[in-house]
Amino acid sequence: MQQEQGQSGGKPAGSGWIRWVGGDDGRLELLDQTKLPSETVMLRLEDLEAVRAAIRRLSVRGAPAIGVAAAFGLWLGIRGAPSSPSDFATALEAAKGRLASARPTAANPVWALERVEAAMAGHASVADKKAAAFKAAVEILQDDIDTCQKMADVGVSLIRNGERILTYCNTGGLAAAGIGTALAVVFEARRRGLNIEVVSCETRPLLQGARLTMWELMQARVPATLICDNTAATVMKLKKVDRVLVGADRIARNGDFANKIGTYGVALLAKAHGIPFHVVAPRSTFDLSLESGNGIPIEEREASEITDIGGKAVAPAGARVFAPAFDVTPAELVTSIVTEAGMISPVNESAVVNVVRRQPE
Amino acid sequence: MQQEQGQSGGKPAGSGWIRWVGGDDGRLELLDQTKLPSETVMLRLEDLEAVRAAIRRLSVRGAPAIGVAAAFGLWLGIRGAPSSPSDFATALEAAKGRLASARPTAANPVWALERVEAAMAGHASVADKKAAAFKAAVEILQDDIDTCQKMADVGVSLIRNGERILTYCNTGGLAAAGIGTALAVVFEARRRGLNIEVVSCETRPLLQGARLTMWELMQARVPATLICDNTAATVMKLKKVDRVLVGADRIARNGDFANKIGTYGVALLAKAHGIPFHVVAPRSTFDLSLESGNGIPIEEREASEITDIGGKAVAPAGARVFAPAFDVTPAELVTSIVTEAGMISPVNESAVVNVVRRQPE
Repeated sequence: MQQEQGQSGGKPAGSGWIRWVGGDDGRLELLDQTKLPSETVMLRLEDLEAVRAAIRRLSVRGAPAIGVAAAFGLWLGIRGAPSSPSDFATALEAAKGRLASARPTAANPVWALERVEAAMAGHASVADKKAAAFKAAVEILQDDIDTCQKMADVGVSLIRNGERILTYCNTGGLAAAGIGTALAVVFEARRRGLNIEVVSCETRPLLQGARLTMWELMQARVPATLICDNTAATVMKLKKVDRVLVGADRIARNGDFANKIGTYGVALLAKAHGIPFHVVAPRSTFDLSLESGNGIPIEEREASEITDIGGKAVAPAGARVFAPAFDVTPAELVTSIVTEAGMISPVNESAVVNVVRRQPE
Repeated sequence: MQQEQGQSGGKPAGSGWIRWVGGDDGRLELLDQTKLPSETVMLRLEDLEAVRAAIRRLSVRGAPAIGVAAAFGLWLGIRGAPSSPSDFATALEAAKGRLASARPTAANPVWALERVEAAMAGHASVADKKAAAFKAAVEILQDDIDTCQKMADVGVSLIRNGERILTYCNTGGLAAAGIGTALAVVFEARRRGLNIEVVSCETRPLLQGARLTMWELMQARVPATLICDNTAATVMKLKKVDRVLVGADRIARNGDFANKIGTYGVALLAKAHGIPFHVVAPRSTFDLSLESGNGIPIEEREASEITDIGGKAVAPAGARVFAPAFDVTPAELVTSIVTEAGMISPVNESAVVNVVRRQPE
């Protein structure tokens, strides 16, 4: 079964929180993150629309994880498609559109869809295309596991013993098929015996930092302290933070990047306090077609995600709300970007292009 | 009845959300702000411990309002005290201690307690001291109504037609006996016909910006948009904010000030975007005994205020939390401080002392 690939062959283990169960007639299973921390429920997804809905409502989130989900979502969307080439092509386009539009800011789903499509391109028959698509989706999941570990290995060189690391949103095993992006560096540092602590910003409105990051850190026995997002400036001023590590949803050619709303503020505050600020992201998060962050589409979410918490109204009925899900941080605020192919530092276009296009050694 | 004083004699009206009902044998009534926006419930408080508990659990909050509450709490604590001078003095000290310790950061309760005590000092008999204490409490409430309007009149000179004003926490009629501090400036600007809008930060953990400020602004038909605190940087970057107005809980001699946790971050972000940042506070919020903000005691609140929202856990059980209720913003980030006795700008020790000690014209 595919979900056991992570444990075999001496390769690093995946988180197991997103997995493919069975052969090409199998299903995608993932932990419903909307239920954490109170419940751990695995969802079984057997068609494209179920995958899209899970992405849309954030049952699965995190740029690498929704890349994996999109790849298998595409497979679920085309495995029963007609065998005539033109009908298959129509079904493929429709499936891609549904998955690419689920959450427009992250680069990884589009990257994953393009990778699956590229794998199919070398094959003439629909049957062969389908086989190639399934194989590509499995490889995307497996590669993500490897990629996370490589990012951790690159990023851990930044960390000194005794450091207190502030992080934002969730970038661990819940955000990827592997051990994560920014939190992967934390896990690797702990594995190597470094005595580090984490400050986790709760990350309003959906509280991924409180619900997910604290849950992962406590499970991994990493000392961690939860703060409201508005307390980041104070913990920096009180010298309780030595370094900031965050993930990314899309990184432009010049190093500007989109990430969960609030990241830009944390980057400005880190600069004001002289604290290094790092992004940890796989190359699948880069979008070299964008010259700068100005071109990144920013998803806006429903007002109710802010005005209602756990079914309880926390603002007057009819309150006008501005609810962007992401913001864009300019490259000038980023000390370095950690990728599976090495570190980008200083962050500028030539360094970005060089690392993103680097061939495996 | 005392609560009608605000409507009489041509003086400005109070909010009515904190009021004394009856003569010296009466009671303190206040709107239970923990129930907003879903319910408007007036609490009737007839003894000191009930007032202390209401302050402690934030049924009443806002520096001027808890100053008024402390004054009447003191009256409730001593009106039945023994008539022997030494027993009365003992009861008075105990009552002061209970009220001053309820919320340690704000200057106004201590200022109000000292003002009541000073009013008693000129009287020899316990009966006369009691009469003076009640009279002083009534004056503190009435003066707060006048003071709010004067701050509004001073502060409105800052506001230009068409401005978008970002505010933090709640500084309106719920935070004072009068129309408020920072929001009073907004209300006055609207009263004068200026076309302004407000961006209200929700103010985690207790969401005073979402629950209280949005409620007041919507009641007053002021165009207002709610954002998560972590979105302040983005609205500034998108040029949706022209000015920041906040209140204060304690202001040191050099102009450093404590206010709701998150204010310091907003001040840094405003500076980074070149946006003017103003504090609006009565002179009762200044503490000239403190050279700088380093001396301001910062109240820490229960972890559950962050980990539980509306009875629902949003973090794993046992999560470690850092929950300061306030932060300190250095004077260098403050464009001006608006008081009822004029504007302090630039903000430095001599300007602070000059305005705070200014005699009425």
